[in-house]
Amino acid sequence: MTDEFDFIRYIKKSFDLKAIGDDCAVLPKDAVSDLLVTADLLVEDVDFRLEWAAPENLGHKALAVSLSDIAAMGGTPVWAMSSMGIPENLWETDFVKRFYEGWNVLAAEFGVELIGGDISRSPDRFVVDSIAGGDVPKGKAILRSGARPGDGIFISGSLGAAAGGLKLLGADADLLDAKEDWQQRLLARQLRPTPRIELGKWLLANSIASAMIDLSDGLSSDLRHICDASGVGADLDASLLPIDEDLKYLAGSDEILTLALNGGEDFELLFTVAEEKISLLENRDVSRIGTVTENAGIVQLSDGEQTIALQPLGYRHF
Amino acid sequence: MTDEFDFIRYIKKSFDLKAIGDDCAVLPKDAVSDLLVTADLLVEDVDFRLEWAAPENLGHKALAVSLSDIAAMGGTPVWAMSSMGIPENLWETDFVKRFYEGWNVLAAEFGVELIGGDISRSPDRFVVDSIAGGDVPKGKAILRSGARPGDGIFISGSLGAAAGGLKLLGADADLLDAKEDWQQRLLARQLRPTPRIELGKWLLANSIASAMIDLSDGLSSDLRHICDASGVGADLDASLLPIDEDLKYLAGSDEILTLALNGGEDFELLFTVAEEKISLLENRDVSRIGTVTENAGIVQLSDGEQTIALQPLGYRHF
Repeated sequence: MTDEFDFIRYIKKSFDLKAIGDDCAVLPKDAVSDLLVTADLLVEDVDFRLEWAAPENLGHKALAVSLSDIAAMGGTPVWAMSSMGIPENLWETDFVKRFYEGWNVLAAEFGVELIGGDISRSPDRFVVDSIAGGDVPKGKAILRSGARPGDGIFISGSLGAAAGGLKLLGADADLLDAKEDWQQRLLARQLRPTPRIELGKWLLANSIASAMIDLSDGLSSDLRHICDASGVGADLDASLLPIDEDLKYLAGSDEILTLALNGGEDFELLFTVAEEKISLLENRDVSRIGTVTENAGIVQLSDGEQTIALQPLGYRHF
Repeated sequence: MTDEFDFIRYIKKSFDLKAIGDDCAVLPKDAVSDLLVTADLLVEDVDFRLEWAAPENLGHKALAVSLSDIAAMGGTPVWAMSSMGIPENLWETDFVKRFYEGWNVLAAEFGVELIGGDISRSPDRFVVDSIAGGDVPKGKAILRSGARPGDGIFISGSLGAAAGGLKLLGADADLLDAKEDWQQRLLARQLRPTPRIELGKWLLANSIASAMIDLSDGLSSDLRHICDASGVGADLDASLLPIDEDLKYLAGSDEILTLALNGGEDFELLFTVAEEKISLLENRDVSRIGTVTENAGIVQLSDGEQTIALQPLGYRHF
């Protein structure tokens, strides 16, 4: 197997699975709603480092990544659970209590109820699987597969800040005490991401987004997921990318572009909008970055002078 | 914190959580059904060893433990997902494909659909979080809290076989090729447990069980969970324990009793039944092992000569 996306396609095909392939599974619930379910596994020293993140921040982030998946379908989160593998030396501390304190502050903000989970011992690394469930109006979940040629491509917020925060952490572990405001902002984007629940719900309620995903792996990879699922391509305009302002303190322009295109974990929403609905997005914190094309599988980036094929170089585990 | 059960009580109290404490969370679904959700984390070298279990067996067991939680509520499993942390060297093999093949055979048997999950890299140990969802008639899920003094205490199948299989594996890693039938049977109970879905549904459909749990940690601990949740005690009769017949080839009588009382992972159902309903259990593969008492928190075991207080010595992670 080459990578995890190939494997997911293999599993989906082998077992004739229909519900797989979006940020959440969509299951029938009642006459008016579907149930959304998602799970995200975070592994110490792969997805986070204990020396970089306070336990409260880890609790926040574990829940946030799952709520972001629900946001990406236009859903409302309702419940969540977490399965944790905990090393003995961590169990002896207040780590797990503080993890849940961070978890619970974010849960309360979105009215999410903790409904269960599992606690296991782990030989030497902390792992947490975050599971969340939500509601979405029946048949209305926003999938990755709805993008059509001519649709505008939009993202919320700014790009690359979470990757910038990660770069800061890697450069100097003492930066948890960073004094500069821009450092604090980048670190917060990496350590305490905000799921874009309200925007997702609003896009669904007003039938604006034709396809949507959250930016978890990185723009170049996540846009590819939409293109693959929709059978389309994309042309991006580099001058339109809403690159996070704080990155200019951190890196040169080439590296900034790389962070914006391939840096993961911004947890912003990436979505497509049919031409006639674009005017509805006025006054929203969203940016048009390009246009969906009929060139299936081809994602291009133009900077006014040249056009390059954009490879999916975002995060992958394998 | 002393153990994981204390911690769960702490979390439940701190955050005023209602849905926590049974084998599954019970959530409102539609006019006639509730949704059951459960998650079980299995960690390499804590919950299993790769050298003891073929990948297909691990896939089977990961799903089986979650389906057993649904059985313990009287529910019907509908969907499942798994989050896996996979070491690079395992990813390079056919391990994950074979894991899913075992998973899928059991899923097909119970009509369970794989709806998603997550794939992450893990530095050096395989971990899998198994999540399952099911349906149960509205308001009818069988909880741990319904046992009443005078109820009979029953278990399905036999006791201690999974612990016997574990003992065999620990004694000799070559026993995967064990020739004796009794060895094969004990190993199968440890490596490929059967969730008692049909029995759980039947007990619910006929309103027979007042409280129920599955035997995952071990009889002495799982019965304690029912007693704690119901505010009752229990008197067990040692002569009534349906100790697995194959254990006699493996151990002396004292150790056999320990395996039966404290050995985990039999994944049989432990349930209580009001006196007037006990006759409905004729012709079922279930055994009465004792009676619920009003002595809250006190579980006793009598062998005709003496009565001892039975401590919860089943499996715990901390």
